[in-house]
Amino acid sequence: MASTTPAGSTTVKHHDRQYKVIGTRPVRHDGADKVTGRAQYGADKQLPGLLAGYILRSPHAHANIRSIDTSAAEAYPGVYAVLTGKDMPHVGDRIAELGEGAVRLCHLSANCMAQGKALYHGHAVAAVAAESIHIAEEAARLIKIDYEVLPPVMDVLQAMESSAPVLNDDVFTEEMGQQTSSSPSNVAGRFLYELGDVDKGFAQADVVVEREFRTATVHQGYIEPHTTTALWHGDGRLTLWTSTQGSFTVRQQVAELLEVPLTWVKVVPMEIGGGFGGKISVYEQPVAALLSKKAGRPVKVTMDRADVFKATGPTPGSVIRVKLGMKKSGEIVAADAWLAYEAGGYPGSPINPGCMCILACYDIPNARVEGFDVCVNKPRTNAYRAPGSTNAAFALETVLEEACAQLGLNSLDVRIQNAVKEGSRRVDGYVYPRIGLIECLEAVKNSDHYQSKLDGPHRGRGVACGFWFNIGLKSSVTATVNTDGKVSLVEGSTDIGGTRTSISMQFAEVLGIPVEDVQPIVADTDSVGYTDVTGGSRVTMATGMAAYKTALAIRDLMCERAARIWECDVEQVRYNDDATLSGPDGKSITFQEVAAQIVQTGESITATGNTNMPNSSNAFGVHLVDVEVDPDTGKTTILRYTACQDAGTAIHPAYVEGQMHGGAVQGIGWALNEEYCYDKNGLLRNANFLDYRMPTSYDLPNIETIIVEVPNPDHPYGVRGVGEVPICPPPAAIGAAIHQASGVWMHELPMSPPRLLHEILAQR
Amino acid sequence: MASTTPAGSTTVKHHDRQYKVIGTRPVRHDGADKVTGRAQYGADKQLPGLLAGYILRSPHAHANIRSIDTSAAEAYPGVYAVLTGKDMPHVGDRIAELGEGAVRLCHLSANCMAQGKALYHGHAVAAVAAESIHIAEEAARLIKIDYEVLPPVMDVLQAMESSAPVLNDDVFTEEMGQQTSSSPSNVAGRFLYELGDVDKGFAQADVVVEREFRTATVHQGYIEPHTTTALWHGDGRLTLWTSTQGSFTVRQQVAELLEVPLTWVKVVPMEIGGGFGGKISVYEQPVAALLSKKAGRPVKVTMDRADVFKATGPTPGSVIRVKLGMKKSGEIVAADAWLAYEAGGYPGSPINPGCMCILACYDIPNARVEGFDVCVNKPRTNAYRAPGSTNAAFALETVLEEACAQLGLNSLDVRIQNAVKEGSRRVDGYVYPRIGLIECLEAVKNSDHYQSKLDGPHRGRGVACGFWFNIGLKSSVTATVNTDGKVSLVEGSTDIGGTRTSISMQFAEVLGIPVEDVQPIVADTDSVGYTDVTGGSRVTMATGMAAYKTALAIRDLMCERAARIWECDVEQVRYNDDATLSGPDGKSITFQEVAAQIVQTGESITATGNTNMPNSSNAFGVHLVDVEVDPDTGKTTILRYTACQDAGTAIHPAYVEGQMHGGAVQGIGWALNEEYCYDKNGLLRNANFLDYRMPTSYDLPNIETIIVEVPNPDHPYGVRGVGEVPICPPPAAIGAAIHQASGVWMHELPMSPPRLLHEILAQR
Repeated sequence: MASTTPAGSTTVKHHDRQYKVIGTRPVRHDGADKVTGRAQYGADKQLPGLLAGYILRSPHAHANIRSIDTSAAEAYPGVYAVLTGKDMPHVGDRIAELGEGAVRLCHLSANCMAQGKALYHGHAVAAVAAESIHIAEEAARLIKIDYEVLPPVMDVLQAMESSAPVLNDDVFTEEMGQQTSSSPSNVAGRFLYELGDVDKGFAQADVVVEREFRTATVHQGYIEPHTTTALWHGDGRLTLWTSTQGSFTVRQQVAELLEVPLTWVKVVPMEIGGGFGGKISVYEQPVAALLSKKAGRPVKVTMDRADVFKATGPTPGSVIRVKLGMKKSGEIVAADAWLAYEAGGYPGSPINPGCMCILACYDIPNARVEGFDVCVNKPRTNAYRAPGSTNAAFALETVLEEACAQLGLNSLDVRIQNAVKEGSRRVDGYVYPRIGLIECLEAVKNSDHYQSKLDGPHRGRGVACGFWFNIGLKSSVTATVNTDGKVSLVEGSTDIGGTRTSISMQFAEVLGIPVEDVQPIVADTDSVGYTDVTGGSRVTMATGMAAYKTALAIRDLMCERAARIWECDVEQVRYNDDATLSGPDGKSITFQEVAAQIVQTGESITATGNTNMPNSSNAFGVHLVDVEVDPDTGKTTILRYTACQDAGTAIHPAYVEGQMHGGAVQGIGWALNEEYCYDKNGLLRNANFLDYRMPTSYDLPNIETIIVEVPNPDHPYGVRGVGEVPICPPPAAIGAAIHQASGVWMHELPMSPPRLLHEILAQR
Repeated sequence: MASTTPAGSTTVKHHDRQYKVIGTRPVRHDGADKVTGRAQYGADKQLPGLLAGYILRSPHAHANIRSIDTSAAEAYPGVYAVLTGKDMPHVGDRIAELGEGAVRLCHLSANCMAQGKALYHGHAVAAVAAESIHIAEEAARLIKIDYEVLPPVMDVLQAMESSAPVLNDDVFTEEMGQQTSSSPSNVAGRFLYELGDVDKGFAQADVVVEREFRTATVHQGYIEPHTTTALWHGDGRLTLWTSTQGSFTVRQQVAELLEVPLTWVKVVPMEIGGGFGGKISVYEQPVAALLSKKAGRPVKVTMDRADVFKATGPTPGSVIRVKLGMKKSGEIVAADAWLAYEAGGYPGSPINPGCMCILACYDIPNARVEGFDVCVNKPRTNAYRAPGSTNAAFALETVLEEACAQLGLNSLDVRIQNAVKEGSRRVDGYVYPRIGLIECLEAVKNSDHYQSKLDGPHRGRGVACGFWFNIGLKSSVTATVNTDGKVSLVEGSTDIGGTRTSISMQFAEVLGIPVEDVQPIVADTDSVGYTDVTGGSRVTMATGMAAYKTALAIRDLMCERAARIWECDVEQVRYNDDATLSGPDGKSITFQEVAAQIVQTGESITATGNTNMPNSSNAFGVHLVDVEVDPDTGKTTILRYTACQDAGTAIHPAYVEGQMHGGAVQGIGWALNEEYCYDKNGLLRNANFLDYRMPTSYDLPNIETIIVEVPNPDHPYGVRGVGEVPICPPPAAIGAAIHQASGVWMHELPMSPPRLLHEILAQR
């Protein structure tokens, strides 16, 4: 059962490969369970004797914790365990690679449960496990904490000043891995990339535009709050049922933080209600585990929405300065970018990818990028869909637009003129293989949307590009052919966007069988080979590759089995694209027929494919938007929106379009409304979905899509990751459209009604 | 942590192999969870919206069901679904191989839910799913069934008479696969095996003993009743959480009975509280599934103890006639056996293995065995530990004892004299490979127990042999090496007797790592390759073989990885027994060190091993027992008991001893007390643990064990199955001891106090 191509969806292929399964739109394997409410999410987990865990959070943005008295809470009837930072193992200062980048263990630990200091409003400071969540909350109120309240540091530029209060006395400035500050600093890292000669470049420019941009802290806004059920077994083993993007990542983080052997931690990934990068780090998992250990019972900890906003990892607010030099011809000759990203309470903003991304769409001979990772009293930031790239794209693309405007050039043509292509060198030295940015720009230029005329007052059109990496990394798949001719497929990538199906489709393509005959499951960490996190746009590409390898192995085993049936040499058997096998003397047998004889003819036909893909693929997107600005209120309405992207090969086009839709919508929210609102004391004032304004379907038109297919040369089916890049272009594209509609250039996100109105009024 | 060898345990090795892990006694991997109550059994399964299912059962032993009116039950508040035989798919007459032998689908279906006829007291006739079990029971009482009560057929000899009411009008007599009766018959099958010339053999005999024996219907008596939770998904897929010996077997049976594609049925095996063969067939599983389908909600069906006794598969009562001819020298020259086994309501008693087993311990040149599978109005029998062999051993061994007694021969010496050995031919034509019966008999002869003197009045000593097959079949194991140097191992054999550990030990032996570093899990049918049922004494042998193959593959991958680390050819790397790897230029690295680098150096180290072992191994046991008979009450007390068995190689001696203990105890219960008591109407009067008298620890001495190791030539570690044969010798051994103690030969089981007293009084 395959759906038809929806209205507003176009595909432009730059290859002539023909597939049977790939490129179709089957119903997802997990669809029925999800629409009928049968899918088991983290909060659905039930166990005999399950306790409720509650995490008490700091009411201050910045405070020393002088002492905590938990005695009253411990004595409260129905309480089984109370936990504070002192109960966390002293994991020390070691830096570990924990599937979310290198992390200093003591910071990850302290972010889960404050140890001596609260660094943001909502920072976990204690936890209680009790018979019910109500008892746990009551008891938590009885915990007496003596805080020494400190001045909060909320702004990235303020935090960088030498006079600013320093959040962490164990954080010193590091530049490209080398410590460069002698005293503790909020500036945890400095990154510098240079290419060519920037001064010489700017000297060649006919116009130089230099601007400073600010972007707000924004949250991924996944529907499902974080939730974990933990059971600490009597022999020291630990089982966690949790909502996560990476079960193996949780396993490793928890094992390191709690000093338990890795293999003794079993992580069961429940269905996930969105992650977008925000469900890679652990938060409540080690807390639930330690509560279970103390209580001797299983414990479930579920965040509420305010907890999620206050204490999980949003993406950083930032200040970015960009200087761009362009010739009259449109040729970009130089760029200089300065970026400061708010890390939150502990180091680790996506400043480094931000630096690598900001110029990544253009072939600029003379470039310099400098970036800073800066601690402020906000929650420790975490990955959010192309982390660091959207902030950067907003700045760079807006400056490019201004330069084009000053020179009277068509900015889309200028982008085509300067776009990176195979052989172009990025500022960090990376040289692109075959990529599809120019193809995307041309597809947008040829689109109905671009070719259409935009009429009416206060209306404008904008375009922007975005770039994001594709990571490869490790995946493992095991498959078994059943006697009904169908296949059970076990994979370790938690499925956020339909990847059970996109993986199964590649498996089915190899064997020439219908994808409906593949039954995929996402297994726990005990039951499948090591698989990296669902993130970095990697799953369909890399776990798909593992499925491809597994299918090849299954194909070989089916040939062996046919040879056994025919009593011939396996070399005499050929597996055909139509799922038949040919043997000597014109013999032929179908996949189904061999499968039906598996039990009679021997052992199980089960095979495993393990992969470790290079981080070699790249994703480019180009978005086009029409807006109308209400000059009296500053409200921007999206009239029409087209997202174009090089998907390499769209395995399941509907899911690629879904990623483009979702990314565009999140980018639109970031562009127009979303922001963390802190008061002067550093307290978050809008930690709910009413005041933190995300776009709904009422705010949006249908998002039109153009899938461009320039196959990835490193993947047998040419797959590129598609999940992240569509969030990058929207703010810049909308900013350009707002300029055309209103005459003002916006340099701050979100471009919310009051902020835009302020600029319109200032212009008048 | 390994326990020491317990008192009363001896091992006699007939090989000089040295192992590091095999032969030790580590703590079982599932131990902590089981002793702390954390292990999840079937009844522990909880799901949102879970309904309770109740099965209504026939109050008659034999009745036509004229009509069923479920309307009142359906209208009862809180009822979600009502089910009768009409709701079962019409699966037709096909005979399928369903993991419990060949089964006629329509019979398996009707045994789960009667279709037109109730064939035994407790036969399922309807089912209700409701908000609570109380509501379901209330509603079930409102179901009106119009029964035409028929005369019950309770005795196997009566059932064989041509005048007997016939239970099934679709059952005709088959002989070795050919139909031989023209009209329906209770005699479903006749089996005949012949060797040599029986008449000529008896003519050579100096003494011929001929006796008729009766054995009662007995139940496995597992602690945990059958329980299944079923969820019929919106897309037609089905998940079952159940207590079973074979998750793949349940999958296949349910798929066939409910006409669902095999791959769409996912069976999650919960921990199992005993099975002994009785948890291979499905009973409540299809009912729970159909109730879930009708109700649109998950449904749990849990039997109570009475249900288990009445309606699951006990092992057959039987009538056996044996004629044995022996020379003065002790040479057995001829044997003629006639066996009739009660199949219960539908055909399928273990008469065929009974026929193959009855003479299997002795090299008898002239032999004839004739067996009958006979339907009676009792529950459909099912496997019970060496099914069919215990009944047969009781008869044959008792006749052998009587012959020895008549000739004044030492029966143990006569057994040694006639015992089968490598090259001996069984009555069914099978020729034994290397086996260890003589070694067992000699071990018993040399034992402290046998060498000790038995003093005192009313005391006697008996000895008996037993034989059972080992099946091989299919198993699959997948393993992953983790960075902490431990290994996750996935297997599909439900663990009844500690097989997680015995499988892991063979895996660890190959790699030279501690078994504590292997973390085994029993996976569901989606998550591991096809694995046959836990039964037939196969798991440690055959799934152990799959683990062995998997470990070899892991060893190769570890060598490859070391070669990658050393940048040398894999041929230059050697894996050593001490879990180190040697490379060129004297390089050395440990398993742990390679494991620690897995993530940095490449893809997951995950491998799968699939096996299909031949049914080539054989188990022999010899038991020795001292009893005291109370001549005034007929009560027999076990004074001392020694069980000896050829284990091939005892992977985990404590678990081998556990099987010997458990089998001996079940055999003792069968010998002395256990029996189904039916009244004249065919109603079961003792369907509870109070009236169905199983032995408890108060009734038993410590069971002494002698493990004999004559390695199985078909297994790399020489493993033989050990789980079943220890149930075979006890009734005959105890019967011989009773004879020595009381002077009477018992020819009926159980040899309960009233029955023995009757014989003692009759003798006086």
